[in-house]
Amino acid sequence: MNYRMIFNILGRTLLAEAALLLLPLLVCVIYGESVWGFVITILIALIMAFSFLLIRPKSKTIFAREGFVIVALTWVVLSIVGSLPFMFYGYTNFIDGFFETVSGFTTTGASNMLNVEALSQGVQFWRCFTHWVGGMGILMFVLAIMPSLSEERPMYLMKAEVPGPTVGKLVPKLKRTAMILYLIYIGLTLLLAVLLLFGGMSLFDALIHSFSVAGTGGFSNRAISAAFYSPFAQYVMAAFMIIFACNFNIYFFILIGKVKEALSDEELRWFLGIIAAAVILIFINILSQYSGVEEAFRMAFFQTASIISSTGVTNTDFTQWHMFAQGVLLFLMFVGACAGSTGGGFKVARLVMVVKGVRNEIRHMLHSRSINVVKLNNHVVGSEVLRSVLMYFIMYFFIVMISTLFLLIDGFDFSTCVTASLSCISNCGPGLGMISPIGSYAAFSPLSKIVLSFTMLLGRLEIIPVIMLFSPAVWKRHS
Amino acid sequence: MNYRMIFNILGRTLLAEAALLLLPLLVCVIYGESVWGFVITILIALIMAFSFLLIRPKSKTIFAREGFVIVALTWVVLSIVGSLPFMFYGYTNFIDGFFETVSGFTTTGASNMLNVEALSQGVQFWRCFTHWVGGMGILMFVLAIMPSLSEERPMYLMKAEVPGPTVGKLVPKLKRTAMILYLIYIGLTLLLAVLLLFGGMSLFDALIHSFSVAGTGGFSNRAISAAFYSPFAQYVMAAFMIIFACNFNIYFFILIGKVKEALSDEELRWFLGIIAAAVILIFINILSQYSGVEEAFRMAFFQTASIISSTGVTNTDFTQWHMFAQGVLLFLMFVGACAGSTGGGFKVARLVMVVKGVRNEIRHMLHSRSINVVKLNNHVVGSEVLRSVLMYFIMYFFIVMISTLFLLIDGFDFSTCVTASLSCISNCGPGLGMISPIGSYAAFSPLSKIVLSFTMLLGRLEIIPVIMLFSPAVWKRHS
Repeated sequence: MNYRMIFNILGRTLLAEAALLLLPLLVCVIYGESVWGFVITILIALIMAFSFLLIRPKSKTIFAREGFVIVALTWVVLSIVGSLPFMFYGYTNFIDGFFETVSGFTTTGASNMLNVEALSQGVQFWRCFTHWVGGMGILMFVLAIMPSLSEERPMYLMKAEVPGPTVGKLVPKLKRTAMILYLIYIGLTLLLAVLLLFGGMSLFDALIHSFSVAGTGGFSNRAISAAFYSPFAQYVMAAFMIIFACNFNIYFFILIGKVKEALSDEELRWFLGIIAAAVILIFINILSQYSGVEEAFRMAFFQTASIISSTGVTNTDFTQWHMFAQGVLLFLMFVGACAGSTGGGFKVARLVMVVKGVRNEIRHMLHSRSINVVKLNNHVVGSEVLRSVLMYFIMYFFIVMISTLFLLIDGFDFSTCVTASLSCISNCGPGLGMISPIGSYAAFSPLSKIVLSFTMLLGRLEIIPVIMLFSPAVWKRHS
Repeated sequence: MNYRMIFNILGRTLLAEAALLLLPLLVCVIYGESVWGFVITILIALIMAFSFLLIRPKSKTIFAREGFVIVALTWVVLSIVGSLPFMFYGYTNFIDGFFETVSGFTTTGASNMLNVEALSQGVQFWRCFTHWVGGMGILMFVLAIMPSLSEERPMYLMKAEVPGPTVGKLVPKLKRTAMILYLIYIGLTLLLAVLLLFGGMSLFDALIHSFSVAGTGGFSNRAISAAFYSPFAQYVMAAFMIIFACNFNIYFFILIGKVKEALSDEELRWFLGIIAAAVILIFINILSQYSGVEEAFRMAFFQTASIISSTGVTNTDFTQWHMFAQGVLLFLMFVGACAGSTGGGFKVARLVMVVKGVRNEIRHMLHSRSINVVKLNNHVVGSEVLRSVLMYFIMYFFIVMISTLFLLIDGFDFSTCVTASLSCISNCGPGLGMISPIGSYAAFSPLSKIVLSFTMLLGRLEIIPVIMLFSPAVWKRHS
């Protein structure tokens, strides 16, 4: 294990976080709010960063193992530091603040705030900004802006942080890939913010909801979330939730003129097909519960987009819908967004591989000589990749089971506990029962909040890095 | 497809069912009840049987495909015929009767009877006897008693009907293997009946509860199930639920003196380990809810044995327990019994392979050169077998999801619908909410009952055969 290099990258990332914390500080200044909470947080981040950077790495080489550990450790440390403002301004204790910040960075949007509208503008801004930072990835950010990481090795960091079964570089240089992705991300976020302004939102609300939607997070400064805003703003948000849940490579290909290639992506087609099917099913199911066709359609479309993209912004309390529509939403929560997007969940690409794998398995039982090969975008999926996708499915459900068991200790009903676990590993946010769109995670015990925090991290970092963090074998010096 | 052979075996199996129906007929005679319902059912079975047997097979050769189709079709047809007495005696309509009979044969024990104590003794007997027949397998029964099936091919029938990832013959001849298994089954069932008589149960009650426990079914003629009987009887039942949930090969090895080999079985050790852990966790969790240590232990032990063995006989309404204990039971419901037993669920052997596979996968991410091999009982599990076990896990959960979506159309709560689906695919019986130990499946819609019937069949026949039944490719004449 290259411990020195781990500290080095951790130091750089804390520097980046200190820089990012300047934005909410600025918001405090603009709104005339007390700045000391953010100032002290920035100082702590800087002290930690420079202490870590004092440790000079003897070698800059990192391997897959270091990549996993760095990413997992970074996310935990950043969440701890990022939670300090919640504490300093007296809104939460440490564990509640940690939960809220992990929920922010992992773009889950599960809140344990009882009165979200009471937060100061600065904290409000920081809370939603964590979504934006976590959506594209904090290490991707570091890769994009910092100079001296050698070119080959950081691939392991990207592999560990970017969602999806496989990761490709858009251009030969990783640094440029990271920059291109961030530029697309910033461009789309600004476009969204402008459209939301047109939809009648204030600049502040438009900005923080753009962060929340772009990161597919889910936090809002309104207790009733998106229901507070105009139907136009709701449609814009829904459309952009879908946009941010698509693989960003598509936008890169569109930018360089390869529109046809971009739109023929198999995962994209499945994704849009699932959305269309879900909207139709939900619309038919809930039509009788609304006064008009437009309203019912808007609810169905918005909630489908919000849940499958793992955003979790809501424009209605869907736990008042017919149960079937709720069931469809829970299925979408599991499915999740496309690989290489800011969204969470199992990921459409994986689902496609699993479905094709199952179909082949059945076909294989029928004709034992049939060739058992899974293809995606006309490329053969290697047996190693398929195997790890199957394993990922299994680990996903094991984690939901284990997390649910822990939550049940608190004594809340089964629906609440199982959907909380599923929603957290899928980085979605809302669920059934106590954690409905008008509910909150506040009543869970500290133990449950820690379990859910790690469930969110397991979901965002796609399991393996977080498990590595707790594996003694990883921490042996000479292995 | 060898259609003629399919009809041939279907005919023989209906003959066997007609013979088995003589037992409840005898019970009717003994208790002076009307016999016509069973007489007509037997006549219908015989007419169907002889019509099918008129079609002479040109070739007796069957392959995997025919094996799957025969088994699935047989189970559906036997359930339809077996449901006739419920209708003829006016207890149910066709769909309710079909649900109850499928629940019987698949050893699920999910009941849609509102007043089970009102059934006549004959119907009561038949209802529990279906558990016993379905537990070891109806085609195994045909194999054991009928002469002329050639020796090699029926292996495909056994593979399709016996639970577990792999199936082995105990002795070279399959017919003898089937006979030995049935003799062990009969012997253990009689021993159980005698012990229950000692526990103060009437002969009738002892017999039908022996059927129910031996098949790991769950039906009872008492509304409060096993809570009706003495603590001694409850301990006996719990012990035998565990015994019948072990791989029967173990008893064969014990019979031929290889006790050490039998007890060193890895699946057995995991099974007993899981039971011990679950009993301890539940006992601690529910201790405060009972008046004494013995009572709390008995509840924990009985329910653990009942749920992991997929029996579903109950001695208390466990939905009144603390939520954590209920969560443990749901986990056990998924785990299920050992391969080669009469029990359902995912099966311990599969779970062990999956857990080892996941552990290897993580280790492989750490050291890419580590050898990625899963062993069970010190034998390497082939990659084909492991792959199909992973696929089985995924199909299991997909079926639970799809079944849950259908049930949610009825509008019952999420806990009820998801635990009903899990309980039915695991062939267990009870669940949370409406289908608690004191509840019933009666209120589900006809559509839901049909969906659950097929979910039970999918669980009992381990998915593939039932899927084959609905695959158009299987039914093409020249493929």
